[in-house]
Amino acid sequence: MIRAGIIGATGYAGGELVRLLLGHREAEIVWYGSRSYVGEPYASVYQNMFQIVEAECLDDNMEELADQADVIFTATPQGLCASLLQEDILKKTKVIDLSADFRLKDVKIYEDWYKIKHASPQYLSEAVYGLCEINRDQVKKARLTANPGCYPTCSILSLYPLLKEGLVDPATVIIDAKSGTSGAGRGAKTDNLFCEVNENMKAYGVAAHRHTPEIEEQLSYAAGQPVTLTFTPHLVPMNRGILVTAYASLKEKVSEETLRKIYREYYDPEFFVRFLPEGVCPQTKWVEGSNFVDVNVKLDPRTNRVIVMGAMDNLVKGAAGQAVQNMNLMFGLDERTGLMQAPMFP
Amino acid sequence: MIRAGIIGATGYAGGELVRLLLGHREAEIVWYGSRSYVGEPYASVYQNMFQIVEAECLDDNMEELADQADVIFTATPQGLCASLLQEDILKKTKVIDLSADFRLKDVKIYEDWYKIKHASPQYLSEAVYGLCEINRDQVKKARLTANPGCYPTCSILSLYPLLKEGLVDPATVIIDAKSGTSGAGRGAKTDNLFCEVNENMKAYGVAAHRHTPEIEEQLSYAAGQPVTLTFTPHLVPMNRGILVTAYASLKEKVSEETLRKIYREYYDPEFFVRFLPEGVCPQTKWVEGSNFVDVNVKLDPRTNRVIVMGAMDNLVKGAAGQAVQNMNLMFGLDERTGLMQAPMFP
Amino acid sequence: MIRAGIIGATGYAGGELVRLLLGHREAEIVWYGSRSYVGEPYASVYQNMFQIVEAECLDDNMEELADQADVIFTATPQGLCASLLQEDILKKTKVIDLSADFRLKDVKIYEDWYKIKHASPQYLSEAVYGLCEINRDQVKKARLTANPGCYPTCSILSLYPLLKEGLVDPATVIIDAKSGTSGAGRGAKTDNLFCEVNENMKAYGVAAHRHTPEIEEQLSYAAGQPVTLTFTPHLVPMNRGILVTAYASLKEKVSEETLRKIYREYYDPEFFVRFLPEGVCPQTKWVEGSNFVDVNVKLDPRTNRVIVMGAMDNLVKGAAGQAVQNMNLMFGLDERTGLMQAPMFP
Amino acid sequence: MIRAGIIGATGYAGGELVRLLLGHREAEIVWYGSRSYVGEPYASVYQNMFQIVEAECLDDNMEELADQADVIFTATPQGLCASLLQEDILKKTKVIDLSADFRLKDVKIYEDWYKIKHASPQYLSEAVYGLCEINRDQVKKARLTANPGCYPTCSILSLYPLLKEGLVDPATVIIDAKSGTSGAGRGAKTDNLFCEVNENMKAYGVAAHRHTPEIEEQLSYAAGQPVTLTFTPHLVPMNRGILVTAYASLKEKVSEETLRKIYREYYDPEFFVRFLPEGVCPQTKWVEGSNFVDVNVKLDPRTNRVIVMGAMDNLVKGAAGQAVQNMNLMFGLDERTGLMQAPMFP
Repeated sequence: MIRAGIIGATGYAGGELVRLLLGHREAEIVWYGSRSYVGEPYASVYQNMFQIVEAECLDDNMEELADQADVIFTATPQGLCASLLQEDILKKTKVIDLSADFRLKDVKIYEDWYKIKHASPQYLSEAVYGLCEINRDQVKKARLTANPGCYPTCSILSLYPLLKEGLVDPATVIIDAKSGTSGAGRGAKTDNLFCEVNENMKAYGVAAHRHTPEIEEQLSYAAGQPVTLTFTPHLVPMNRGILVTAYASLKEKVSEETLRKIYREYYDPEFFVRFLPEGVCPQTKWVEGSNFVDVNVKLDPRTNRVIVMGAMDNLVKGAAGQAVQNMNLMFGLDERTGLMQAPMFP
Repeated sequence: MIRAGIIGATGYAGGELVRLLLGHREAEIVWYGSRSYVGEPYASVYQNMFQIVEAECLDDNMEELADQADVIFTATPQGLCASLLQEDILKKTKVIDLSADFRLKDVKIYEDWYKIKHASPQYLSEAVYGLCEINRDQVKKARLTANPGCYPTCSILSLYPLLKEGLVDPATVIIDAKSGTSGAGRGAKTDNLFCEVNENMKAYGVAAHRHTPEIEEQLSYAAGQPVTLTFTPHLVPMNRGILVTAYASLKEKVSEETLRKIYREYYDPEFFVRFLPEGVCPQTKWVEGSNFVDVNVKLDPRTNRVIVMGAMDNLVKGAAGQAVQNMNLMFGLDERTGLMQAPMFP
Repeated sequence: MIRAGIIGATGYAGGELVRLLLGHREAEIVWYGSRSYVGEPYASVYQNMFQIVEAECLDDNMEELADQADVIFTATPQGLCASLLQEDILKKTKVIDLSADFRLKDVKIYEDWYKIKHASPQYLSEAVYGLCEINRDQVKKARLTANPGCYPTCSILSLYPLLKEGLVDPATVIIDAKSGTSGAGRGAKTDNLFCEVNENMKAYGVAAHRHTPEIEEQLSYAAGQPVTLTFTPHLVPMNRGILVTAYASLKEKVSEETLRKIYREYYDPEFFVRFLPEGVCPQTKWVEGSNFVDVNVKLDPRTNRVIVMGAMDNLVKGAAGQAVQNMNLMFGLDERTGLMQAPMFP
Repeated sequence: MIRAGIIGATGYAGGELVRLLLGHREAEIVWYGSRSYVGEPYASVYQNMFQIVEAECLDDNMEELADQADVIFTATPQGLCASLLQEDILKKTKVIDLSADFRLKDVKIYEDWYKIKHASPQYLSEAVYGLCEINRDQVKKARLTANPGCYPTCSILSLYPLLKEGLVDPATVIIDAKSGTSGAGRGAKTDNLFCEVNENMKAYGVAAHRHTPEIEEQLSYAAGQPVTLTFTPHLVPMNRGILVTAYASLKEKVSEETLRKIYREYYDPEFFVRFLPEGVCPQTKWVEGSNFVDVNVKLDPRTNRVIVMGAMDNLVKGAAGQAVQNMNLMFGLDERTGLMQAPMFP
């Protein structure tokens, strides 16, 4: 039984981790960390857990946690995990960080985009970028896994075969992404009130969103050359779900059938990436509550452009589900353990 | 392994049955019945089941189904199950009917409210009303279970202790219920279009909804006297969830603490009914995707009235989940098997 | 041209006042008061007003405002209007208070339910309860109008004929009300975040909501005897709209046709109350953006109970629209001036 | 007083025309055409118009209509207007067609994309494309105006200055558009049911949507050269609103300030196009119910790409509002007549 501790258990991603780990037959939660609710029953914050979780919220004491847990999940704002991490902790326990602290290898890029000083850059080289489908082997051996961002997970998996195979010109990649509102977190901000989000849609962070360098870094590895791209996120009036629509120009003419064949080669072996039948567009609702990413590709012969679409649940494959998938790999389990739920519809 | 057949597998309740049975370790689905989609892959109708369900939709052949299945679920419009049922079938297999055909013991009341002739009234006395918390022992022995309606499940469980204990005047019971739109089914009607339901709320079926006699019959058994009540359903712009707010006048003064004590006695032993802490109002989102009913009670001392609130997922405890709970009982399993999912939030 | 000043112009009710007054040919806004945004352009808070409103937000200086405005609207939390009001101000200008400060005649009841000390009880007797359809003549002569609460407006207009005509037993009145989320205001609270409200429904303030005594007081006047009732509000995942479903037992048998005739007598002369055709249930969407209240009544002969339904836009007839209607009356205009917009659908 | 007839008055665009014309002081509706509801009171279809519209629905008799009306709006599926139009009609009355029949000058392109034969191609050269901000002078003289599509209106106005000024490479234009569900019409289709759309998002018509050639034709006029582009529409769970996010590569380096200056030159004189302040992203809710299009532009210096955003109400500026604006121009009125409503928020 893997003893799991969660720091930040009362955010939306933390709450989803609790839901998933409760259904995981090889794991148990030993620490519900939440600085804001120390001493309160967890189920009084998330009433869905009434009579399911009896525990109270604890503070973010990572040293004590390291003694009690085999794995620590940090589902906290940027900077916290980096500020608490020490060799002592990593010697005792594994860490899966759901924040951005260890996703970017270049500390300067991190500090430029996140506007904070990195408190433990010495672990950047060791940290494994936990996009399981791409880095499965490294994750298996990791002590410290950087759980990918929600937008990056969906964007990278959607575009990966195109760049890995060198089919498209990296300079033409544009990612237009749409996210449900749980991605904005549980902080009490006017912008995230029901009446401000409902019946509304907007872009935000245009040409400036912090997931941009993360996507670029990973796609650069795939392409074998630096990729600079345009990424535009949008806020959508729904709780969960990310939809990515990405565009890229083909280097030379390729048939849609060839494109489909390549995607099948990449994703038929992957349980959590479902490459959809021809003509079926991914819908966020079809993956809700599950760890699946649905992907499809369409050729626009008039412009010689490829349009790739990806849909996933931002709290599952985009956060807590992928974290559990990483945990499974790090502890030698089947990566699907605890993640076999069918999506819920409607 | 229980072999389960579903007639009406492409309605919303049928789809939910599929989702739940897929996660049930003692059952397997052997028949995806859907007259509208015969021959089409089930996963082309419910794309969430892509790469999970490989089967095609089959016709509503109940005789053939009886040979292949240990249990048949009928998630179909009123009248169909009654028209197909025969002794031959019941000798070979168990039937759980999610329609209203076998819920009312009095065929005249059925025909008055449903405006159709009952095709097999001879099974009315045998059929067990499958509200597990109340009729658990009969369900265990049943060949034919009438799975309760969504509104009745939530209404009856909310009010049951009050009437069973004779605390309230049955003539004063009023049930004001609110339901998400999946309760209206998947038929293509203008009234259920997104733009007609969204940002809108209305009552419907006022003083005439067909769940009224079902609630009255069951509460009459509890009260030991005939109960006639007012029931008003409302349509709410959300996918899932039923919220019941019910009112009744106390026969004599009772303290809120006494009321709470009585509810605890009834529901502390029940896994799927969660009697909430004082002052916490049930919310539909806190039970979404799960088989829980959350209940609370509040005394209004100014009017000597009790206000009872109940919340549940109409597709789970209000339909497919309760059907699985009934199946578990009918086959001697722990009734919670396959129904332990924590609610999903947000 | 009526010069209007608004204190609290950046709340949702204040914003709606701005929208309505901008379309009012006899009024102009001279003061956009908002303590939180002093000095900021109003259109930077409410971007819908970009290039429409050029003014900046001003402080809540009621004395200075009284010199500049013919009428002051206070769309502020309870207590503020009472604390600022003075004879000097009322000599210079008229005041329409959208808070609850002057709605209840009995200061003790106000202080009991609102838990604050009333700062100017000397104006309680003078203040007119501005439910125009009922108190039209007094409003015309008022210096100080207490604009009714949203729930009370819809509840009272729905039930008024029944109590005025003595048809129902006042002790049996139950009001089950449902409101869109704008009624909760624009404060940044976790409970009002999109992800907490969306796909969710709950009761709140059960047996304790502060609109209860307001409804009781007005219905007592109608009934000519004290009315004590049960009022239960619910939060619904939509921006705008209140739906009231109210129940009361008939003193003696009355036909539905008689009930309909009585309602027609009361409401045929009223432009803003639309008594709907038989069998048509009010829907909040059918009145959105307008000052209408849609009402209908249904007899439940099985229980001898009347079910009354009312729907309105909580920000218009429930707040800003009624305030403008009151202003029109106080300044001798046709009460419909600036309020003739047809509801917007969908 | 302009006598207006509407064919297709019970679709969503037709209903919005009714709402707007009812508030237009120079127009009156003389014909509510709706083949599906002939003989039924209009207000029984759209209950929001109860006690506002007394008329019954009439058939689609364009010849008789031409005798009674000064202007005919056709808010009907593709093909109908073209099939009914004749010289006799155009001699008696003006026609504003909200369908696509007269938007494309090249009949072959129309027939290729719409898969129907054009019944009156002889009027294609006469018809004026009614995007008022661009073709204002021709609209003033038109007998027959082709009211632009919803996506084209928002897309073209967002991109126009870039192409007209030759700042971007036309081959790089990509339009990623998002629409509320009213754009899908009021037909009773499973895909548009509340439960299928709510909490969901998807692309549709990828590389194949029929608004593509319309956008291309108009942007080609602006660019002075053929423009071939990629256009991807998406369905969003909201009633109203279109958000366009468009991408194009600059031919040479231009500062954001220069871009902003150019946009200001184009749109400062335009009442209905609001070029937003730097850093403010358009939101669909900020224009709801109004005829405004909110536009902003952002330079992505890392990729030398321009990102343009546009938001409007698809039923107003994207359909009925623009039709009224066209009517105003065709009858010599101020184009803003009847269209001065401030957007409604929230």
